[in-house]
This record gives sequence, structure tokens and C-alpha cells, in this order.
Amino acid sequence: MYTAQLLPELQLRWEKMQTAIQAAGADALLISTNVNLYYASGRVFMGYIYLPASGAPYFFVKRPVGLNGERVVYIRKPEQIAEYLTEHGIAMPKTLFLETDSVSYNEYIRLTHIFSPEQVLNGTALIRTARTTKTDYELNLIRKSGQQHAALYRRVPSVYQEGMTDLEFSIEIERQARLLGSLGIFRVFGPTMEIFMGSVVSGENADTPSPYDFGLGGEGLDPSLPVGCNGSIIKPGMTVLVDMGGNFTGYMTDMSRTYSRGNIDDLALKAHQTALEIQETVIAAALPGTAAADLYRIGTEIAAKAGLEAYFMGHHQQAGFIGHGVGIEINEAPVIAPRSKDILKPGMVFALEPKFVIPHVGAVGVENTFIVTESGCEKVTPGREDIISLT
Amino acid sequence: MYTAQLLPELQLRWEKMQTAIQAAGADALLISTNVNLYYASGRVFMGYIYLPASGAPYFFVKRPVGLNGERVVYIRKPEQIAEYLTEHGIAMPKTLFLETDSVSYNEYIRLTHIFSPEQVLNGTALIRTARTTKTDYELNLIRKSGQQHAALYRRVPSVYQEGMTDLEFSIEIERQARLLGSLGIFRVFGPTMEIFMGSVVSGENADTPSPYDFGLGGEGLDPSLPVGCNGSIIKPGMTVLVDMGGNFTGYMTDMSRTYSRGNIDDLALKAHQTALEIQETVIAAALPGTAAADLYRIGTEIAAKAGLEAYFMGHHQQAGFIGHGVGIEINEAPVIAPRSKDILKPGMVFALEPKFVIPHVGAVGVENTFIVTESGCEKVTPGREDIISLT
Repeated sequence: MYTAQLLPELQLRWEKMQTAIQAAGADALLISTNVNLYYASGRVFMGYIYLPASGAPYFFVKRPVGLNGERVVYIRKPEQIAEYLTEHGIAMPKTLFLETDSVSYNEYIRLTHIFSPEQVLNGTALIRTARTTKTDYELNLIRKSGQQHAALYRRVPSVYQEGMTDLEFSIEIERQARLLGSLGIFRVFGPTMEIFMGSVVSGENADTPSPYDFGLGGEGLDPSLPVGCNGSIIKPGMTVLVDMGGNFTGYMTDMSRTYSRGNIDDLALKAHQTALEIQETVIAAALPGTAAADLYRIGTEIAAKAGLEAYFMGHHQQAGFIGHGVGIEINEAPVIAPRSKDILKPGMVFALEPKFVIPHVGAVGVENTFIVTESGCEKVTPGREDIISLT
Repeated sequence: MYTAQLLPELQLRWEKMQTAIQAAGADALLISTNVNLYYASGRVFMGYIYLPASGAPYFFVKRPVGLNGERVVYIRKPEQIAEYLTEHGIAMPKTLFLETDSVSYNEYIRLTHIFSPEQVLNGTALIRTARTTKTDYELNLIRKSGQQHAALYRRVPSVYQEGMTDLEFSIEIERQARLLGSLGIFRVFGPTMEIFMGSVVSGENADTPSPYDFGLGGEGLDPSLPVGCNGSIIKPGMTVLVDMGGNFTGYMTDMSRTYSRGNIDDLALKAHQTALEIQETVIAAALPGTAAADLYRIGTEIAAKAGLEAYFMGHHQQAGFIGHGVGIEINEAPVIAPRSKDILKPGMVFALEPKFVIPHVGAVGVENTFIVTESGCEKVTPGREDIISLT
């Protein structure tokens, strides 16, 4: 199931979740979603992890065959979890955490019939909180993704060719991402948001509203996936904002850079400078103890002072945040939004993405992923941040 | 929301669902998942569709801004759906279909608090059944995906270069898929299965069990996504099975072909011939009225008669099916499996994928997508089916 080397790391994660289980006076947490199975075991498998309030977890595996290790038990169906616990003299949980924001209603009913708990609590929220503050091991995976992500952006200008569409440009960037080790898939919390590897938008298309709470829109290629590039040619006077996911390990980074063809409008240049100023000012304030909502306020005030609030985080449709936590999923805590209750702590990781959408030109701005440390933020996605000319 | 041209098509789909709502004596169906919003409106948006037992549906939209049309209502939260219905003199539903296999427990609780229905029925199953038999419009989207999918496989041999890893080969195939119009994302029903654009496995790696109920395994590139290619070099004596998704429209096709380097083992050659025989025999039997379970039996009997059952649909780990419905998602009904209750009907679409995993060599076999018609099956993914030599 996991290597001896990984065990101390997993123990840190189990203890973090168990502290929360105990604080709630609960007996156990049952995990069944891929992202949380990965968090709690270091790998994805089909099955369940039963984490008691204290002691090591049990790994109930359906697939793949061949996993072994302490407390690894093969099952065909979740009913066998209760049978196993009973046979081994382990009491049924009276208060049980289930991933109630993620498991379907029918799965919830099945699981509660199996365990008949007196009370069920929100395990999704519990694990989300545990995952918000990363361990050193997790931070190193994020740094590794950031390094590859930065290497990808160094290659971006070289794959552009005159006359390309946004889609053609995106395809060559996607290929470079894969050659640099991108796993491809892009994990998003919640049922709604769907996106392929990332977003490349230019010109008018940047201002087409999408179904999602993104700063950037884009018509997309098909009504079944109405977001991102739409196959239009990148023309002189346009910017191209490249926002490609950094899924080079199980832990993602987020990073965007702005490119341009020929001379672009002064308003776009001013907006880009303002985005860089927002980044600098927000990051200078992003110390442990700072409220994420205050960071949002700082960012939006700079945009307003520059007279650019109509373009900030979108134009026809505006996003309600300027940054978001990243980790196994692209939208973790902390959320840098007006009503966020998150307070920065060392070990948190977030992407800050001040962006502006300028009608007829495209989007400008910058996005980087930062680790919160005692003394300030560590940028894990370095690379030039001016508007880079495509020739 | 939708064009006038699309309305008659959407009406067919609404009527199909409404027949089932009425048959259950229910009042309405509330749709909130992307795949089913797409099915019922022709596009993805963030929000809900409220489909009464008769009459046109209401589209409650959160994002994007700017959608318009009959019965399009902008909301910020689902509680406003009930307010709208009340304000417009529409009775609250007493029996309501919700997507209980897909919406989370917490979302279910929120929705039932809003509508206070006396009874909730399984809307996931209702829509899944409606989606199983495709309309002519949907079949044309599937044919279009099939054409592009077939064009992709014609290009596959040309992107291979000697010394490539399975990953490098996959990356060039992915790029060609995108250039041919692949949307990239790969929609799977259920919470468990995750895969990038498809699977390219060769040699020993084909026999590494994955967490999923796939005929093919593969170690993958990372424990966070343990399936598919693992970066090993494709060597003489190995086969390469390419199983790349055909997501060229909102409706997918599924297609696999086998490639080889140099001379391969007689057992692999025999198994490939047996896969082609299984395809021919199963498809000849796949007429309206045939039970999917019978097709499974026919396929497995041929594999057994050839003495190849130990390698059929996997070796270290075997899949429990030989085919699956396709449509908006890759795993729809009918399921070609031993305990399937599905009976073939005209308009159903399924992929048949007889495959064998030969230790040390790799996987062999074939996969095509078929439309069930009155007179037999229409193959929508044509192209040569012998083992194609990579040079």
C-alpha cells in the first residue's frame, strides 16, 4: 500500500485528521473519494480508508489486486467493512465522519445503513481543513510541480508561430507540458467546474463569460465544454493569457503569463502594471495571521484606485476572488475572496491571480503559486512577468 | 439558451424524460449535473433545469451571464427556484426526481429542504435510461466523433519513432487528437474512475493492475493517477495497445488498435485473431432484442474455446465486461457484462472491446463503437484491425 519511507509522512496526516476527529468527539472517518484516498495513503485505489479516532487506519481495497501491507483488507463491497470490524472486536462508530460534500446521496444512504451511526459529521470539511496546511513532504511536491511549471513557461514563446489560432498555440503548450511530465488530469473540488489542461484565451474571446467562477472566460470549442480557446486566430494588437495547470505531481501549481502580438493598447499595458503592483502589495501583506479577506480588499482597492475595477477579474462577467488555495485540487483553501474566513498560516499554499480583461484586446495579468512561511511568501513558479512579445 | 433549430431535438429529449416522470406518477425532475444539463439544454451552464411532468422546462442559471430565451431565469442560489415557482403559481412537486447517484448528500439535503417533497426518486437512473437510446441528432454527433477518431488512428503509425517510450508515443497521439478537434476532457459516470485522454500500454506494463474496472491496466506515471503508460521504452517483441478516447463532440466514441515492434509471440498473434473473431461473432448477434448478457457469454465462450480465458480482458486482474455503452460519458448503458439486464434496442450505442493481455508482450485486441440498428450494427470507428507494425 505504501513504502516504509512514506509511513512517517502518512502518520503526520493521519494525526492531523485524528486530532479533528477527537476534537469532535467522533469515533472514525471513512474516506472513499480518490483525492482523499491519495491524501491518506499516498496512492489512488478503489476502496475505502477507515481511520479510527486513534491508531492506524484500515485500508479496504477493491482494486487493484496485489496491494499489501499492514491492515490492508480486500473487499468486494462496503458491507464487508462492518463485517471485518465486528469480527475483529472493533466497535461500530457512534459518531462517524463521511465525505458528505462529495459522496452521492445514494452512497451516503448505503454507508449509513452499514454502520448505523447515531451521528454523521462532515468529513469533506474535516479533510479539506487538514489538507489546507501542507507538510514539508507535500510542499516539496508542490515545489517540484512549480519547477516544471516554470520550465514550461520558459518554452511557451518558442512554440508560437505566426498565424496560429489560440487552439493551435494551446495544443503545442499542452504537448510541452506533457513532455515535462504533466500528468494531464486537472482535479477540481466540487461537481461543477470542468476544464481540460488549462486555458489559453486571446482577443475578444477572453471576455466571453463561462459557466464557471473564473476570472477568464472563453467560448470554448463546443457547448459541452464552453470555456477557454475557441479556435480564433491570434492577431496583432491582441494579448494571449496562458493559464495552464501545473499537474506535474499529485500536487498542482497554478501559473499564468501574458503574451502579446505587436503593439497593444495603453489600457492593457496599464492594467498589466497594475496586476504586478497588486501581486507585490498583496504578497508583501501575506504573512501568517493575515485574513485572506484583507488580501482581497488590498487587491481590489489597488484596481479601483487605478480606475480599472470594471476590468478586474473579468469584464462582462467578473470572478468573486483573486486567489485560491492549491494542492491535490486546484481550488483548495485558503480562498482569497471578500467573505473568506481563512487566516493565513505557515504551510498554506495559494495562487494569486490578479488579471484584467480588456475588451477587444484580451486578458492581461499574472498568476503565481506561493507557500506561506513564517517570514513571508515563497514563490514556487518563478519566471519573467512582463508582457512577453510573440514573434 | 438554445437555438430555434435545436428546439425540436430538445423536445424529443424532454418528452422521453417526461414519459418516465409521468409513468412514476411524479411531478418533476430537477437536473444539476453538467452532463445532464448538457443533455437537456444542449449546453453546459452553472445552474439547474426544472422539468415538470409536462410542458417546457425552466432553466435556472447562475453563470454565464447573457443567456436568454424562454423560461430562462437567473438565480444566485437554488432557494430562488422555489420562490420563482411559488410566485408564478406553480405547485411545489410532491414527488420529485433528483440525481441521487450524483448529487452529494449535502446538496440533496439542501434541495429537499427547498422543495419539501413527500417522495424523492432516482433521477440519475431516469436520465441514464433516457440517454441510453440516442436520437438521430445524437447519433450524428457520435458518427462525427467516430470519423475524427478513425482519422486519428490513421495518423498513429506516422507519429511513432524508434526508441520512443509509451509516454512519448502517447503525447504525439494526444497532440494529433487535439489537432483533429478533440475537446480533451473525458467524461466518466460515477465518482471513481479517473483517466487522462486515454491509454497507451505496452509490454509488461499492460499487465500491471489498475484501480479501475478496465481490461487494461498500466502503472501510470504517478501514484496519484496509477493507470496507463509508465514511461517505459517500446521494445522489439512488444505490442502497444492504443485506447484513446474519441471526445470530438459532446458525444464520445471509443476505439482501440494494436501495434507491434518486430516479431511478436505466437500466443499474442493467436489472441489477436481470437479478438477479431469475438468481435465478428458478437456483432453478428447484436440485433435488437438481444440481451447484453448473451453477447458477453458469446464473447467469453470464444475466448475459452481458444484456451485463452486466462488472458481475456486482463491477466493479473481481469475486467468484468467486454463492452459498454457510450455517449456523453464513456460508461453508459448497455453494459456487456454477465449480469447485465440490458436488452439491445435501435439507437443504442456501445463499444465492444475484446482484448487479451499476454505476459511480457503486452495487450492485443480491438475496440470499435457500434450503433444498434433494426438490421444490425453500424460501425462508426472504421479502420484496419490487424496488428500494425511500427517501424
